[in-house]
Amino acid sequence: MTEKKILLIVCDGLSDRPAKEFDMKTPLQAARKPAMDALARHGMNGVMDVIAPGVVPGSDTAHLALFGYDPYKVYTGRGPIEAAGAGIAVLKGDVAFRCNFATVDKSMKIKDRRAGRIKAGTSELAQALTGMSIDGVTAVFKEGSEHRAVLVLKGAGLDHRVSDVDPHNDGKIRQSTPLAPKAKKTADVLNEFVRRSFDILSDHPVNKDRVKKGLPPANIVLPRGAGSINELEPMGVRIGMKCAAVAGVTLVKGICRLVGMDVPDVQGATGGLDTDYKAKAEAALGLLKTNDFVFVNVKAGDVASHDGDFRMKVRVVESIDMMLGMILKDLPDHVIVALTCDHSTPVSIKEHSADPVPLAISGGGGRVDGVKDFDEISAATGALGRIRGTDLMPIMLGMADRAKKFGS
Amino acid sequence: MTEKKILLIVCDGLSDRPAKEFDMKTPLQAARKPAMDALARHGMNGVMDVIAPGVVPGSDTAHLALFGYDPYKVYTGRGPIEAAGAGIAVLKGDVAFRCNFATVDKSMKIKDRRAGRIKAGTSELAQALTGMSIDGVTAVFKEGSEHRAVLVLKGAGLDHRVSDVDPHNDGKIRQSTPLAPKAKKTADVLNEFVRRSFDILSDHPVNKDRVKKGLPPANIVLPRGAGSINELEPMGVRIGMKCAAVAGVTLVKGICRLVGMDVPDVQGATGGLDTDYKAKAEAALGLLKTNDFVFVNVKAGDVASHDGDFRMKVRVVESIDMMLGMILKDLPDHVIVALTCDHSTPVSIKEHSADPVPLAISGGGGRVDGVKDFDEISAATGALGRIRGTDLMPIMLGMADRAKKFGS
Repeated sequence: MTEKKILLIVCDGLSDRPAKEFDMKTPLQAARKPAMDALARHGMNGVMDVIAPGVVPGSDTAHLALFGYDPYKVYTGRGPIEAAGAGIAVLKGDVAFRCNFATVDKSMKIKDRRAGRIKAGTSELAQALTGMSIDGVTAVFKEGSEHRAVLVLKGAGLDHRVSDVDPHNDGKIRQSTPLAPKAKKTADVLNEFVRRSFDILSDHPVNKDRVKKGLPPANIVLPRGAGSINELEPMGVRIGMKCAAVAGVTLVKGICRLVGMDVPDVQGATGGLDTDYKAKAEAALGLLKTNDFVFVNVKAGDVASHDGDFRMKVRVVESIDMMLGMILKDLPDHVIVALTCDHSTPVSIKEHSADPVPLAISGGGGRVDGVKDFDEISAATGALGRIRGTDLMPIMLGMADRAKKFGS
Repeated sequence: MTEKKILLIVCDGLSDRPAKEFDMKTPLQAARKPAMDALARHGMNGVMDVIAPGVVPGSDTAHLALFGYDPYKVYTGRGPIEAAGAGIAVLKGDVAFRCNFATVDKSMKIKDRRAGRIKAGTSELAQALTGMSIDGVTAVFKEGSEHRAVLVLKGAGLDHRVSDVDPHNDGKIRQSTPLAPKAKKTADVLNEFVRRSFDILSDHPVNKDRVKKGLPPANIVLPRGAGSINELEPMGVRIGMKCAAVAGVTLVKGICRLVGMDVPDVQGATGGLDTDYKAKAEAALGLLKTNDFVFVNVKAGDVASHDGDFRMKVRVVESIDMMLGMILKDLPDHVIVALTCDHSTPVSIKEHSADPVPLAISGGGGRVDGVKDFDEISAATGALGRIRGTDLMPIMLGMADRAKKFGS
């Protein structure tokens, strides 16, 4: 029995609702997508509540579920995922935060929550902050894109249950407060980090230069989204497969790194509407040579939905279909391909929704149902029925003849 | 984004099995029901295990599940529901019972378990019992229809785990016994209440008058179905919607009141075969003006089934269809309509069964599957798949864009 490989392709937010203006079709129903339909026709289909019926999935919790982790057990906040995405190893006991560089006046009133969307110099600013030691805790700090950054506190006795410093509007910055008695030390360290960041950043040459040019100085750091990592067994160990991912967007990269996948940078994979589909297809095929499980995320559908652009979303479907076609053309034998979404993002509401997502799984000598098209309605009539996100990984492993027997 | 309203219509026991004598059709398949079929055609369909596969739902546990409460967690017995239906506020710590007025001889042997289905005078009899104080516990007692009544014990240290006084046959009345060590006080108080009820009722003018007329005196009270209320978060708070109900039958009214719905009395809504369908339709449309969630229960299908009358059940389907047609004709925009049953009651067995029930959900810009008829078999091919009763509320909230996001 040859052990089969698995390719999981997740189309971020591609699942939708019917649009009145487009003949009551969803973007998937309106698009020309021969590769997706072929996959559906040659495999089994179903719909999936990625978290649970009636729960609107975030992209982070959704991907954890699709990778087989119960998000209610492992997810505490977005900080660790962003930090992992930025390449900082978040370990058990660490507390991680998403941060903004921002501009405040001397009374700590926010003048610009994004420091004029600062682009240059954040690496130098981060360098001035990282490694700071407060009360036995070390602060690891790293810049992200534009005004974004991540902070990871490392040390004994930390707890993620603290409130945000970021007020999420243009008021005064907030003192972080412990939301549980055990989190007092963390809140104290965090507040001290923010206080010192103001002193250090205010005097930094990058900011003196910005002020000279009439730009708002990035003179403070605003942490939010505290989270820690519970016992997260690496995916490779858990499923006994060498795992790699192709993803453009930082959040998804972060989740992949968090679960221990190899996530090489792919030139042109931007996580936006301009992503290079051909590069993603080639990267996926390349990774399949040296890995057992390859994951591909395409973000563009979600972006088109958040813009409320039905026609753009149809074009995204057709681009992803082209990518899938390239992959299927050169796909080695013994690879099971699963095509699905992490959540629905209906163009009509421009937000994630709780509507279940379509799912097609094909290859490896598995069963074939009578479904002919890959879309939200056709999939629901397929042989997979209605499953949950955390069921997907066990089902794929089963089809790959890698599932464990219970009993004898 | 407009938040949508929800209308949930539950046809009590309407779901059935095929009848040999009627061309292997179920009553739903045999009836002419254009409104129900239109709802199915314009929405998504599925079947629902209201409690779980193979569990026969009671009307009480079923409605709790449909309202989103796990009946295994909140349901302890029918007493509190009957008490709420009779208008007594049952609070945490109270223990409530359903009761019969009955006739016993001096040896406490039952002569008539329903006191000749007594109709007049029960209000006066209840008045003579309510407010009784036993060992620091207050007994609140209220008559229901005919021989039925409810008892609520209020005081410290009560526990619902006690056996029935009602022997459920014509033997001798039973002493209530504690089914858990903590319930001894409750059993003692209950037995004393029953003993005193005999003394008080035997001497009551209503009963002296009955004896004079040759009627069996309602000279004792037989409690059964002890239950208490666990923490039951009001539905309005839980789902953030103003909730109201149209229901004729006391048990269902009781559940609605228990979960905090507004339950106005609707003239002509009897809970029987003679219910005024037009009045129910008008009441539902009226309540939708000032509420976000409106629930309608129609009991008649269950009644026809308990009578084993297939033809009558077909007529009930057609009457409910007329009611639904009236509602759909004047329904405001942005209302999601769900049509289902609380359980199956096959005419062939005249009892509730574990067969799943059909479900159609339509409106609010949601998906549309290819199902054309509202019945047990057609529904099973729809896009909702096979769900559980406690999934219904989250799914409806999701379709109404009122579901919460988990993650980011």
